[in-house]
Order: sequence, then structure tokens, then C-alpha cells
Amino acid sequence: MFITLDGGDGCGKSTQVKHLTDYLQSLNRQTVVCCDPGSTPLGDAVRNILLHRRELTVADLTEMFLFMAARAQLVSEVIRPALAAGKDVVSDRFLLSTYVYQGYAGGVPAESLEAAAHIAVGNTVPDLGIVLDIPYEVAVERLDQRSEPDRMERKGEEYHRRVREGFLKCAAAEPNRYVVINAAIPADDIAVTIQHIVQKQIDQKK
Amino acid sequence: MFITLDGGDGCGKSTQVKHLTDYLQSLNRQTVVCCDPGSTPLGDAVRNILLHRRELTVADLTEMFLFMAARAQLVSEVIRPALAAGKDVVSDRFLLSTYVYQGYAGGVPAESLEAAAHIAVGNTVPDLGIVLDIPYEVAVERLDQRSEPDRMERKGEEYHRRVREGFLKCAAAEPNRYVVINAAIPADDIAVTIQHIVQKQIDQKK
Repeated sequence: MFITLDGGDGCGKSTQVKHLTDYLQSLNRQTVVCCDPGSTPLGDAVRNILLHRRELTVADLTEMFLFMAARAQLVSEVIRPALAAGKDVVSDRFLLSTYVYQGYAGGVPAESLEAAAHIAVGNTVPDLGIVLDIPYEVAVERLDQRSEPDRMERKGEEYHRRVREGFLKCAAAEPNRYVVINAAIPADDIAVTIQHIVQKQIDQKK
Repeated sequence: MFITLDGGDGCGKSTQVKHLTDYLQSLNRQTVVCCDPGSTPLGDAVRNILLHRRELTVADLTEMFLFMAARAQLVSEVIRPALAAGKDVVSDRFLLSTYVYQGYAGGVPAESLEAAAHIAVGNTVPDLGIVLDIPYEVAVERLDQRSEPDRMERKGEEYHRRVREGFLKCAAAEPNRYVVINAAIPADDIAVTIQHIVQKQIDQKK
């Protein structure tokens, strides 16, 4: 089973990726965890360009291609082999984040994104995409506790609201794939909610 | 006018880019020279990944997206503004090289390349694309005089022949845009040939 977690900065993705992975392993399911962009040497190199090169001018379209490059590599090097070997894959971000950040909140037309996505991942799309939804105020409070915001975290409130709206709209466009979860509740409660959803999906697949 | 030069390694592109730029400037035409991938900070970062990271595993599809990322940035940051300001642009490689290396000699389907290219550059395609054609033996002799071959130059004879064939076939598919030149003759003679072709194009545009 291929499960992705997406959401705005501060939504608690990383924590939930860990909880979900522990849960799947507790069910004796072999689970591969990955991070998009990242989890391959090439993906890390691209991630490094995207997150830490503040001095670079990077057009939305350029960003989109960089994300697709990292993703194409992740799919061919990690996700597809794991799924083919019967393992579960849990990915910290995937396609949906590009649809939102470069598309809905950026300037790349939806049809360009869809065409590029189809080239990059083919049929390797999530069986279940979890969207962690969080109000701006809660996200800001969480992010304030971190040391240094990255490039994407330094944008203002209006941008964050647009990103949140984008996640909700993009998720609503594919209701059979994406499930939106209120991520303003305590992390342990989110984890339990996700476990229920995943368990239901596992039972359906049996 | 937007002019590109493409061809296999050792074809003498860089020398001809310089000759052509000098020629255009001698005609009092403002000329911007660029290199694809490269000529923007982002493009240089991507170029660095592509050419010097030998230890990375990079799928053909990933390479294609990286080239498109650098190219999208080059078009938006350098080429389009220069053309809009009435300048000539001379680019050392452009789309055709991706069609050949990642497509014809790689594993990316032509329709994927065309779709990605359309997203990356839109209508910013060369008015004139010069293809420097060179037999394997001549290319090898020239490359032997360089210190260290890059990743793309370390492949064998069969690969080079396929690349050459790719350039000829891709150029033949768009005869109104691409002109193939025998690049096994002395560099000064190639330069004169290119000047004639460019002058003809300039006269036609008047």
C-alpha cells in the first residue's frame, strides 16, 4: 500500500509519518519510509537547491521541474521497487504538495502540472493520501518553536491561507484518494485517526 | 533572433558559439550568449549535479526533468528578456540535445519530451538551430586532447553513434528550424558556413 502525507508547514507531518510507520510495523507489515523531495542521493541534491539556496532566483515552473526530477528518481529508485516487493510505502509529501505550492499557490497551470506529474510518476500514485489540515495560527505557533524557518516558511499569512485552501480543494477533487484530517488536535489523537483510516483501507484490500 | 548550437561532444560547439557571437556583434547586433544548462545561478547548480556528481544514480527521466528545470529558468531569466529587448540570443545547446540524449539515445518517450518541452519553454523555440555533425573518430581525437572527460563523455562508441544518428533524425524532423553542418572540417571553415546561414536568415527577416 502506498500512503502519502501532505499539508502546510507546521501541520505535524513528520511526527505522523513516524507514528504511521510504527503502526504498520506493529501489524508486521514491511514498511519503507521516504521523504519527497529526498530519500535518494539525487533527491537530496535537489532538495538542497530548493530549500537552502536562498540567493537563487527560482521561477515557479523551474521549481516544479526540480520537484518532478526528485520525484521521478524517488519513484524509480525507492517507491516502485518497494511496492513491487510487496512492502508498504509511506511518503512525507508527494504530488499533492506540488499541485498546491507550485500550482494553486504558485503560478503553474493545472494542466502543466498534471502532464508533468503523469510523466514523472506514471501510475505510481498513492492508494491513500492523508492531508493534515491546520489553521494558520496553530501552524505559526508550532513553527515558532523551531530554530530557523526554511525558504517556504518565510512567506506571510495570506500565502499560508492560500496553501491551506489549495490542499482542501485539491483533496476534494479526488475524494477516493485523499482524506483530510483536522491536525489542530493533539498529535496522539491525529495518530489514532490515521490508524483507523489506514486499518479500514487494509480491511478493504483483503 | 534566437540561434542554438547543438551536437555531440567534441563537435566544436563552444568555438563556434564564440565565432558566431563575434560575427553578430561585428554586424552591430546586440547579442546575449548563454549555455544550456547554465547561465543562471539555478542552472549552474543543476549543471553541477548533472555533470560532476558521478556517484549519483540518475534515471533518464530524472535527467530530463533536471534539464527542463535549468532550461525553464534560462528562458524566463535570460532568453525571453533578451529577445523582448530586441537582442539576439545564441545558446550553447538547447532543447534538441535533450531530445537526443534523454530521448533518442536515452529511454524517455518522445511524447513525454515534447510535453515537458512545451511546458518548459512555451513558444520560446529557436528561429535557427545549428547542428554540428561529426564522425566518432574525429570527436574522440578532439576529446582526447582535453584533460578529463565528463560523465557524458565517458560512454562508448556505440552510444556516440546513436547520439549522432539522433541529432540527424531530430534535425530532419524540423527542416525549417534545424540546419546540419559538417563539423569535421577546420573550425574557421565551419564559422564561415554558419555566417552564411545566419546572414541568409537575417536577410529573410528584413
